Amino acid sequence: MADFVVGGAQMGPIQRADTREDVVARMIALLERAAVAGVEMLVFPELALTTFFPRWYAEDRAEFDKYFEREMPNAVTQPLFDRARELEIAITFGYAELTPEGRHFNTSILTDRAGRIVGKYRKVHLPGHVEHDPERSFQHLEKRYFEPGDLGFPVWRNAGVVMGMAICNDRRWPEVYRCMGLQGVELVTLGYNTPSVNSQKGEEGLERRLFHSDLSMQAGAYQNATYVVGVAKAGVEDGHHLMAGSIIVDPNGVIIARAKTEGDELISAACDFAACRFGKETMFDFARHRRPEHYGRITSQSGVVLEV
Amino acid sequence: MADFVVGGAQMGPIQRADTREDVVARMIALLERAAVAGVEMLVFPELALTTFFPRWYAEDRAEFDKYFEREMPNAVTQPLFDRARELEIAITFGYAELTPEGRHFNTSILTDRAGRIVGKYRKVHLPGHVEHDPERSFQHLEKRYFEPGDLGFPVWRNAGVVMGMAICNDRRWPEVYRCMGLQGVELVTLGYNTPSVNSQKGEEGLERRLFHSDLSMQAGAYQNATYVVGVAKAGVEDGHHLMAGSIIVDPNGVIIARAKTEGDELISAACDFAACRFGKETMFDFARHRRPEHYGRITSQSGVVLEV
Repeated sequence: MADFVVGGAQMGPIQRADTREDVVARMIALLERAAVAGVEMLVFPELALTTFFPRWYAEDRAEFDKYFEREMPNAVTQPLFDRARELEIAITFGYAELTPEGRHFNTSILTDRAGRIVGKYRKVHLPGHVEHDPERSFQHLEKRYFEPGDLGFPVWRNAGVVMGMAICNDRRWPEVYRCMGLQGVELVTLGYNTPSVNSQKGEEGLERRLFHSDLSMQAGAYQNATYVVGVAKAGVEDGHHLMAGSIIVDPNGVIIARAKTEGDELISAACDFAACRFGKETMFDFARHRRPEHYGRITSQSGVVLEV
Repeated sequence: MADFVVGGAQMGPIQRADTREDVVARMIALLERAAVAGVEMLVFPELALTTFFPRWYAEDRAEFDKYFEREMPNAVTQPLFDRARELEIAITFGYAELTPEGRHFNTSILTDRAGRIVGKYRKVHLPGHVEHDPERSFQHLEKRYFEPGDLGFPVWRNAGVVMGMAICNDRRWPEVYRCMGLQGVELVTLGYNTPSVNSQKGEEGLERRLFHSDLSMQAGAYQNATYVVGVAKAGVEDGHHLMAGSIIVDPNGVIIARAKTEGDELISAACDFAACRFGKETMFDFARHRRPEHYGRITSQSGVVLEV
């Protein structure tokens, strides 16, 4: 069973005016710091290459295709892959994906320690809305610019560990961790861009938002006996504040590393993946304890059915 | 939308030597205190009428039928129902149920404010084991003395609120809250008898056990925008320490009441059930955001399937 140092590369804001080259240079700087810290697996945020553009409304969606990547790696990101390979650090990061067929996804990829892409995930739980919503204090148009992911919740064995990916709002959904838990996941990696204020409830500010973020990841970790690494893009981005709070959670649901800043910052923790075994073999020995015959609603209905 | 005070009637230990009459007298005393506090719905623990007998091994299971109730209400519990009706307090409590067909369940019932039983739940997630396990520091033989519940996770509208029940170990399983959440639940009630030390991991003591208990209930509350009330039978029972930590959690996952002792203790909180709406209509608007087409494993497999 593997035992290595996992890192989270929290990133400060990426302004609209920043170039992807600027951003990749920052990511490589974080990778260098990670190498010094002995990190073997490094997690970058969601949409790590650009500003969080779904906060703006574009009448013509195609106007925002400039924020999407048509291939990965591409000319701009190749230096990141090269440096990761040289440093023998597996990485995962998020980006907006535009497929050859013209489909748009909020995507993350996973590489092995040789810099090869071994996994791809497309965000399933897109928050927000499709049309401009004047009721909100700001827009959150992920449902406008992306389609929901079509790849499910796969896992991969990478560096000896069973890994899966999620993205941002996915972390609030227990189904996500469970689908991976049912495949024996030992490390769930996820990145996020989360406004520090609820656009529909102004009084729900930073403290409460951090609490909800922690709570969801800690419960997902504990209830599936897996490590979870959640990494933010944070700080004031194009005038909008994104929460930080990047954390590494152990299979007991305990936070073992936490970012202190809202900028580019490395967090890391030595993970003993054998520690996943205890939970998986006792309290959460799914084969002995789960009762799918009573869980039917979880897959047979998406919304609430009020019968009483 | 209803708005009333919910109470948790934490109970101290029930020794083997205690009679059910002794116990019902304590429950009625808690009910009286609840009435003074303005409680309209009161939650008692799991197996509220007896000691937690699954900690002992009986070669002949029938030897423990003495801990089971053959009807509910019965002569011993009728005064509890009567007093609840007079005080107009809806109640829920757990007991060991022996059916006319000879089946054994770990059960809880729910009454309306007129003292009528309106709902029954049978514990689905039985922890522990069937045969004597010499590796454990003490036994946890729920799988020996009970069969898994056969009623699923129903909800009822009671006192104007959509309520559902769970029991003890059920609280660690996100499927439980979700099945009720998909029926619009606004109040999940549950009782527990939880040893304060993990029988298979001695160093996992009280603090960690309380953390796991809180974490599971808080996540279940937040992710389904529901109140959750978890109520312990606590203290040193027949030489075994049970954790306390009874809590009431709001739909934000925030703990709004917590027991301070390990004895008979009333906790209560004014619950504004309209507060469930915000989560149910935004972040956790299931119809808009859930994607059951990707959740298939949750119902198609019970145990882990390792494919990588």
